[in-house]
Amino acid sequence: MTIDTQILAALRAAGTNGVAGTELSQKLGISRAAIWARIEELRKLGYEIEASPHLGYCLLSVPDVLHADDLLSSLKTEVIGRDIRVFEETTSTNDVVERLARDGVKEGVVVFAESQTKGRGRLGRIWMSPARQGLWFSILLRPQLRPTSVTQLTIAAATALFRAIRSQTGVRPEIKWPNDILIDGKKVAGILTELSAELDKVKYIILGVGVDVNLSAADFPPELRKIATSLKVESGQRINRAELAVRILQEMDRDYERVCSGQFESVAGEWAEHCSTIGRNVTIHVGDRKIQGCAESLDTDGALLVRTQHGHLERIIGGDVKLEK
Amino acid sequence: MTIDTQILAALRAAGTNGVAGTELSQKLGISRAAIWARIEELRKLGYEIEASPHLGYCLLSVPDVLHADDLLSSLKTEVIGRDIRVFEETTSTNDVVERLARDGVKEGVVVFAESQTKGRGRLGRIWMSPARQGLWFSILLRPQLRPTSVTQLTIAAATALFRAIRSQTGVRPEIKWPNDILIDGKKVAGILTELSAELDKVKYIILGVGVDVNLSAADFPPELRKIATSLKVESGQRINRAELAVRILQEMDRDYERVCSGQFESVAGEWAEHCSTIGRNVTIHVGDRKIQGCAESLDTDGALLVRTQHGHLERIIGGDVKLEK
Repeated sequence: MTIDTQILAALRAAGTNGVAGTELSQKLGISRAAIWARIEELRKLGYEIEASPHLGYCLLSVPDVLHADDLLSSLKTEVIGRDIRVFEETTSTNDVVERLARDGVKEGVVVFAESQTKGRGRLGRIWMSPARQGLWFSILLRPQLRPTSVTQLTIAAATALFRAIRSQTGVRPEIKWPNDILIDGKKVAGILTELSAELDKVKYIILGVGVDVNLSAADFPPELRKIATSLKVESGQRINRAELAVRILQEMDRDYERVCSGQFESVAGEWAEHCSTIGRNVTIHVGDRKIQGCAESLDTDGALLVRTQHGHLERIIGGDVKLEK
Repeated sequence: MTIDTQILAALRAAGTNGVAGTELSQKLGISRAAIWARIEELRKLGYEIEASPHLGYCLLSVPDVLHADDLLSSLKTEVIGRDIRVFEETTSTNDVVERLARDGVKEGVVVFAESQTKGRGRLGRIWMSPARQGLWFSILLRPQLRPTSVTQLTIAAATALFRAIRSQTGVRPEIKWPNDILIDGKKVAGILTELSAELDKVKYIILGVGVDVNLSAADFPPELRKIATSLKVESGQRINRAELAVRILQEMDRDYERVCSGQFESVAGEWAEHCSTIGRNVTIHVGDRKIQGCAESLDTDGALLVRTQHGHLERIIGGDVKLEK
């Protein structure tokens, strides 16, 4: 834990009682002047910290910023989030994680950006990522999976994202195959999975996650308003992004562990329960091909099984799914 | 074409007649002194070029080195090899091509290295790459394929490699699924396929090719002598590496075009004809799993279909295949 993390943890533990500078100084083994300097830095980041001769330091409010140390100090996970880095702005968090992956960084690192200049959606599309309005982050994983089983991780990440959003905001989300989160049919979050692999061995996987948290309806371009929404719009309240981020990482860590220990089936069961795609008529574009039929179920590796109009079963591992009425 | 390529092409066309410096100078639009300077450079690379007042310049012999311009001037391909780069030494040609891929270089670039310090085989193994004894190169491709169809390219590359080796050396090679070339049961060439992809879209593929050309039996470590060999050992003669390289690239370009235009089935038919794996009992290790059975055929996407002892059909897309007696 860094000094900032320790100070924030002590302030949180003290609550409204506050904690004396001398006490912090002894606990952390650094001078009172050094404590004061760190407090000043935290204030610059937006942490409202009162200093009184009587109570000492008291944490009044936490800003709506993402602070790596602060996220780390709230997180209890095995793999995902054991290393967290926050950028004020970057091209795309997937790009940053890709560089880390090639440098041999261990799995579990998570990179957040307050804004992305080139946020990417699936199939080369742009993902709008305005500053401090959402959660834009990417996770590096190095699972012992074959490239064809990577859909399992996407399914697991979507299930975790679903749970975190539902429990943290009270809205009623649904999952669209394989990994979009919708509310009332409008997209509120998505996952971009990128992999580097040999023919039969994954080298690394990057899960890029985008959640539209506190955007207003007016923040969306007119052409997107019918198909995209935010948690704030749907829940009618601003959502604390840091708390939501912590919750998402915890749920994802849990489901990653389930997939890695061979429990994908139980994840898939939970996924199917909340998935609005199963049982629906769908039109799927895979490259130039168009497939129409009824989405019957998930295959053991996470592929979507679609019964076409001609009666045979198609395995879909990716593509653009449109839900028909 | 660079000046070197044009000079070499002119010398080759002239054959033993030679070509006058004045003629070269006029043809290429540069001074006779400049021609002479380039000839000197080519000599340094090992090209034996005679200069006589009578005949002019005459190409007596070509060194056993790989020269990008020289390879380019001999090559007639659509995609593969339209950009060729030769390194004296590198870590692994796949690493070099990966950097080019990320920089957005067009498909078809081929990187050769005279030697590799960290040549890679499949599944993280080392590929021995002694200087000037073999062909170690990597090709960048950006096909419109789904990640699960990448085996098609590996099958096509193996088929092309098989044809080039057979026609250029007179040996009788066989193909081992998916992409090793054997002679008399010993490995003489292999392909390492690496891919970068989204869930449903390939970003790029790197085909790394290693061919043991002129190694002597003594060049192989004792533990490899029973399972590895070279074209020189098997054919009893030194092979011209540049000519073999050109032939391989031409065959690969042809088969790449076949796969991209939807003719994988005809490639697969040719592959199966020369594949020693089909019809054999095999033991396959895929990660921790061991699969035993009879290799019956290829699936439409290049996967190997193995009838297990329990009677059901397993689809194998990668792994370590051992041929049983």
